[in-house]
Amino acid sequence: MWRALFLLVALLATAKSEYKYETLWFKVPLDHFGYQRNETFQIKYLVNEDYWDRGNGPIFFYTGNEGQIEVFAKHTGFMWDIAQEFRAKLVFAEHRYYGASMPFGNKSLDNKHIGYLTSAQALADYADLVNYLQGNAIKPPYPVIAFGGSYGGMLAAYFRMKYPHIVAGAIAASAPVHQFTGMVPCEVYNRIVTSSFKIVSGRCVDNIKSSWAVLRNFTKSSNNTAWLQKTWNLCDPPNTTSDVQTLIDFLQDMYGTLAMVNYPFESDFLMPLPAQPVRVVCQYVNKTFKDDKELLTGIGKVLDIYANYKKTNKCINYKSSSYGNLDASGWNYQACTEMVMPMCTTGLDDMFEKSPWNFTEFAEKCHKTYNVYPMEQAARIQYGGNRLQAASNIVLSNGLLDPWAGGGVLNTVSDTVVAVVIVDGAHHLDLMPQNPNDPGTVIEARKIHKQNIRKWINEYWK
Amino acid sequence: MWRALFLLVALLATAKSEYKYETLWFKVPLDHFGYQRNETFQIKYLVNEDYWDRGNGPIFFYTGNEGQIEVFAKHTGFMWDIAQEFRAKLVFAEHRYYGASMPFGNKSLDNKHIGYLTSAQALADYADLVNYLQGNAIKPPYPVIAFGGSYGGMLAAYFRMKYPHIVAGAIAASAPVHQFTGMVPCEVYNRIVTSSFKIVSGRCVDNIKSSWAVLRNFTKSSNNTAWLQKTWNLCDPPNTTSDVQTLIDFLQDMYGTLAMVNYPFESDFLMPLPAQPVRVVCQYVNKTFKDDKELLTGIGKVLDIYANYKKTNKCINYKSSSYGNLDASGWNYQACTEMVMPMCTTGLDDMFEKSPWNFTEFAEKCHKTYNVYPMEQAARIQYGGNRLQAASNIVLSNGLLDPWAGGGVLNTVSDTVVAVVIVDGAHHLDLMPQNPNDPGTVIEARKIHKQNIRKWINEYWK
Repeated sequence: MWRALFLLVALLATAKSEYKYETLWFKVPLDHFGYQRNETFQIKYLVNEDYWDRGNGPIFFYTGNEGQIEVFAKHTGFMWDIAQEFRAKLVFAEHRYYGASMPFGNKSLDNKHIGYLTSAQALADYADLVNYLQGNAIKPPYPVIAFGGSYGGMLAAYFRMKYPHIVAGAIAASAPVHQFTGMVPCEVYNRIVTSSFKIVSGRCVDNIKSSWAVLRNFTKSSNNTAWLQKTWNLCDPPNTTSDVQTLIDFLQDMYGTLAMVNYPFESDFLMPLPAQPVRVVCQYVNKTFKDDKELLTGIGKVLDIYANYKKTNKCINYKSSSYGNLDASGWNYQACTEMVMPMCTTGLDDMFEKSPWNFTEFAEKCHKTYNVYPMEQAARIQYGGNRLQAASNIVLSNGLLDPWAGGGVLNTVSDTVVAVVIVDGAHHLDLMPQNPNDPGTVIEARKIHKQNIRKWINEYWK
Repeated sequence: MWRALFLLVALLATAKSEYKYETLWFKVPLDHFGYQRNETFQIKYLVNEDYWDRGNGPIFFYTGNEGQIEVFAKHTGFMWDIAQEFRAKLVFAEHRYYGASMPFGNKSLDNKHIGYLTSAQALADYADLVNYLQGNAIKPPYPVIAFGGSYGGMLAAYFRMKYPHIVAGAIAASAPVHQFTGMVPCEVYNRIVTSSFKIVSGRCVDNIKSSWAVLRNFTKSSNNTAWLQKTWNLCDPPNTTSDVQTLIDFLQDMYGTLAMVNYPFESDFLMPLPAQPVRVVCQYVNKTFKDDKELLTGIGKVLDIYANYKKTNKCINYKSSSYGNLDASGWNYQACTEMVMPMCTTGLDDMFEKSPWNFTEFAEKCHKTYNVYPMEQAARIQYGGNRLQAASNIVLSNGLLDPWAGGGVLNTVSDTVVAVVIVDGAHHLDLMPQNPNDPGTVIEARKIHKQNIRKWINEYWK
């Protein structure tokens, strides 16, 4: 559960390495909302002006999320793909406490320094940066459009909501703004994971569903754990109950991630994966197995593709919570403070073991780790959650293959707060660079994005 | 200049002492936007449910400003006057660091504790409180309408802007949301002070205008300062250049305050004053004086009415910056951090000596006093200032006799961000209890307020 709270950012595959940008730094106060602490620090931002029509063209501003900004700049191909058409300046701003935007250097994530890692502070950083980019002007010379995916999509939407005078509109892709207490059932994420697998094969889902009991029973013998370590190429055998739980959590995350990044092309973000990874892995568990070992061997193939597709790892370290290049280690803190996203499984409508959401247990774990108690209602109170009627100029896009769509806005809220549903899209596929394998629905979604962006820009000039 | 930055809250006169309320307390975090500090404290709020239609009636929520909340509850008669008609619950919330809502008791205003006195933190307090009053509900059972005057009016408007999911609409009376760098000329406040006097008598203005040089010249002799102390009933003679400056600042504030609270009925807020105080005082300086002493004697009469109308003070303490019952001592800190409101006089279009706005000097004074430097652009970046197009459901009312109207919004911004101009109103007269002497324009303004409130409530129920 703990690990499932990572809001994994799916970045991509077909990223073009030739994107060029200037790397710059901008000074921000540690605390925008109080004056007791007067430290400042630098956040990183990346700029490309190749296509910018100075003085007329808009700024396309990526509201960086939990990771190094270079990764987002590299993989948010949609912004690069449309920059020329809109004669736009591209800016990618790094979120405080991620990447190199560290207020206290390598001590930033220590409990005594991490407390200023909040979405409100990050948005205030972005507001200051946009104000600076607009020349601190009372009447800014050009409009700013916010873009973001996943948590970055939430930030893009929130940026427009809280600072509409600074941002003309926002493309918020796969932003689970409803993934908070009481707004959607906590099992919705895992239900969608399951349905993304079921689309490929019902038998695949049935086998995964039965694998949990098999695995728990199987690992009771040390002979079996030795066999499992060898067959699954694990770095450590799952010898203890705790190890088995860790392994099961790892597998559950795996299925979630596979559904999330179930793109129609090869991707290499969290781990290298083939095109249509759900389809690829399901072929190994899409049959009637004659015994437990055969079933587990099939699951082992899934694991091998997920964790070692390029055969670069000597063994699979299921105890590691590392997510490749994207260093999102601050996210657990955000999940333990304001971004409390209940997650559960029912064991009925999903292919997982039953695991209820237990806020109290979660809160105690947060307290033990970070000496904070989560503010269960904070995000709803700050950002409205299910009450976005008064906002404007936001596109909330979601792919229905994406487990995070469950916490997304799938119905248009008003004339200007618009839902865009991409039936066969995974996690913020619409922000990715265009690709020959793109389904028609994402091509259509990108057209709608461009129409809205153009509308917001025209409104700005009126 | 320093003292002129006080955003004086004009409260009133005809306040009905029979208003009844329950006094309650609500726990808030010291810091809503960071988790490094985990202290909490209590803010005070007052509640009246006499007319409330439970489960259907709205909450009318006063966003407390710089002072004890009882003072606002007592004087915001408009809310009491319409409670029955709307079957509303009344809530008056006290602003942190004012009144009894002190995070660190009587040490709260010490430099090492005062840093969490910001508008953003106060608004977050109010959001938490409203959420609590709404039963922490995902779909709140009744709408909330925000009310506020002066800085409280700014807060009411900002509350709707930043938390539209929590507040259905806002009546923002005499809210100088444009009184920030670059939005309006810094002399506008004092220009309106002057014109409010000029309406009564041009000669009054001319005499006040010539009094400054007279006073400076006159006080060069100690015989004269002794005479002045006696004639003006001053506690101390203005013997030094610094004293003279303090006295002049006191007089300048006096004229500003007289214009601000230039109500058609007796008032007793900052100091007891007669109805139409500008008219009353001008009668003492509305002639051709034969010499300096006669002119100064006239000014002394003005001073006497302003500072000792009820003859309860033994002498006039022009060195005191106390403002009666409203303990607004935190305001200077807010003016020195985020609420930087440039003020100046030109000596041309106003009846004062020329005194330019000098941000650098101001900033150094703030630094010396509070160890902070003012964030000149903070309010504009946070709240939009002159760019309110994307906001909705806000009424911004201003009386044209009120010097703060210069920093107010006098032109309707959009269908739902509406300006209400009260031609012969002083500072947030529309929020005061109804009075037989009310001009027709304020009666009309209150009707418009009620229409808007009804519209917002109906919208909420749709």
